[in-house]
Amino acid sequence: MTTDSPNFACPLPILQHDRIQLAHGSGGKLSADLINRLFLPRFGNEILNRLDDQAILNPASGRLAFSTDSYVVDPIFFPGGDIGDLAINGTVNDIAMSGARPLWLSAAFIIEEGLPMADLNRVLVSMEKAARAAGVTIVTGDTKVVNRGSCDKLFITTSGIGLIPEGVTMSAASIRSGDCLIISGTFGDHGLAILTCREGLSFETRIASDTAALNGLVENMLGVSQDIHAMRDPTRGGVAATLNEWAKASSIGIVIAEEKLMVKPEVRAACEILGIDPLHAANEGKLLAAVPADKAEEILAAMHRHPLGKQAAIIGQATPNHPSLVVLRTVLGVERIIDMPVGELLPRIC
Amino acid sequence: MTTDSPNFACPLPILQHDRIQLAHGSGGKLSADLINRLFLPRFGNEILNRLDDQAILNPASGRLAFSTDSYVVDPIFFPGGDIGDLAINGTVNDIAMSGARPLWLSAAFIIEEGLPMADLNRVLVSMEKAARAAGVTIVTGDTKVVNRGSCDKLFITTSGIGLIPEGVTMSAASIRSGDCLIISGTFGDHGLAILTCREGLSFETRIASDTAALNGLVENMLGVSQDIHAMRDPTRGGVAATLNEWAKASSIGIVIAEEKLMVKPEVRAACEILGIDPLHAANEGKLLAAVPADKAEEILAAMHRHPLGKQAAIIGQATPNHPSLVVLRTVLGVERIIDMPVGELLPRIC
Repeated sequence: MTTDSPNFACPLPILQHDRIQLAHGSGGKLSADLINRLFLPRFGNEILNRLDDQAILNPASGRLAFSTDSYVVDPIFFPGGDIGDLAINGTVNDIAMSGARPLWLSAAFIIEEGLPMADLNRVLVSMEKAARAAGVTIVTGDTKVVNRGSCDKLFITTSGIGLIPEGVTMSAASIRSGDCLIISGTFGDHGLAILTCREGLSFETRIASDTAALNGLVENMLGVSQDIHAMRDPTRGGVAATLNEWAKASSIGIVIAEEKLMVKPEVRAACEILGIDPLHAANEGKLLAAVPADKAEEILAAMHRHPLGKQAAIIGQATPNHPSLVVLRTVLGVERIIDMPVGELLPRIC
Repeated sequence: MTTDSPNFACPLPILQHDRIQLAHGSGGKLSADLINRLFLPRFGNEILNRLDDQAILNPASGRLAFSTDSYVVDPIFFPGGDIGDLAINGTVNDIAMSGARPLWLSAAFIIEEGLPMADLNRVLVSMEKAARAAGVTIVTGDTKVVNRGSCDKLFITTSGIGLIPEGVTMSAASIRSGDCLIISGTFGDHGLAILTCREGLSFETRIASDTAALNGLVENMLGVSQDIHAMRDPTRGGVAATLNEWAKASSIGIVIAEEKLMVKPEVRAACEILGIDPLHAANEGKLLAAVPADKAEEILAAMHRHPLGKQAAIIGQATPNHPSLVVLRTVLGVERIIDMPVGELLPRIC
């Protein structure tokens, strides 16, 4: 090594991997790494840098939420749903998590040559139903067909726009020490539904995905209080990833109580057999919210009045202790750190 | 066949094909068929039904244009551009074609495991440059990685939002008999660039894609007159597809003069060797406009003042004769019908 090469320049950021790994799309550490090292230096701007799931736009009239997601789930049909309702609900949820009312969706399809028309139709029917249930309109789209072998059956990318009510502002950075953390129900369902269905495992009770649009539930919550600090649907990376991102973004500690966590017995059984922590498993119809302690009961009651929030519960709190860390207090009183998942449990979960 | 089965019902629309064919994504007849038979019955609504490349949204403040496109071009690097600038310029153009000022873009990536990081970086650099040149901001995004073999290297879906100036309304249905048809320059460049590069053909002069953002050119045009009836970038299916769609949408005839059509010599040579009509080949940086005859010269002059419109020319007119048909008048005075291309020349052109 010499120091006399002042003109030496490396046009490419030095990365630990010189090829894309599966974990780069996992929602875990390597994803964050990829975004921070490669994407942000290129695209970084005030709106994108927040790295929330949706962009808050500010035209003359009011603020819009605008979000996009590609869906590559394998298999395209699974217990509880398919790639179609997943693509609608996922983007609706990303928009709703800003407090916005989702209104308009776009849908872009990449279809493998040879896909049975009946399969495509089934997916479209499912998208139609999901869009109607969520009260959103697909307003534009695109279709590409690629040669057999150039994609796996069907990929769908949806983008959406929603209107944010005046006075609503949510951000992971707004979480304050003392805030209560609410989850809308059981977790791990979607991840384990895909995993067991793909691996051909069967249990006495079939595990079904929880895919659902959460905007109605969010409306219920905002109806009683606009004072919600942050909201997120814990998809890839699960509850653990969302809580870790929140702890880091707001530099607070998070402590959750094991006895408050609800996992369906069949999901828990599958997790035990497969050696998976349900906190790391993906959800597609659940939300986490951080709310001021004095508003928590009122918001919880509003959630209980919605079909998707009947089991909502306070699972923990933000604390000034151990900033940026997420800690689980077990039933026995032992505390263990819940880390950010390193990678996805398996690719193509959504 | 009996007529005594009143309860017989076919839940699936009867289609000529029971599997997706490549041509279903071609922008040609089979694409229209797929959309009309399968997509519209599911998603049809006032906004989507217009089947323009962008959705016109109408929030309290003003009208927004919102568009999406998936890019699956093969190869991802080609003479004149790559999948990155194509994905930016393509969506910018779809928005600009409504007269809107493109502002915000989303970008969703589906990446094949094993893609060299350097390739991804090169694409991102190219997107950054294209976005800066077009004056748009990428405000949200998504990244998925799929197993090796589940997609071909890299697919990008961009969506965009633009603001439509007051008073501007364009629609294929507004074209009137007597309108002049303007093209912004030579055509067929992109299609032949991809085709020759993929087939490994080389000519004395390398054919380069014309990928470019047209919003600046559109601003020049609207600066002199908002009275533009329709505008479209002739991508998949080429100039022939756009003119045929216009003729049908407005129930007028279109006649174009062969001697006005500009094709680069190297593109013309490649077309002759490959037996391709340049009118059917894709463009990624050209626009067609239908304008009232009394505004045509003024608009043309404004186009000539922009780098992307220096060669703009009036190539034909809308006529009450032969409604819904596009006719080419050759140099010898013979007229021949220019039909809608049946399918794409080759898949994955964009």
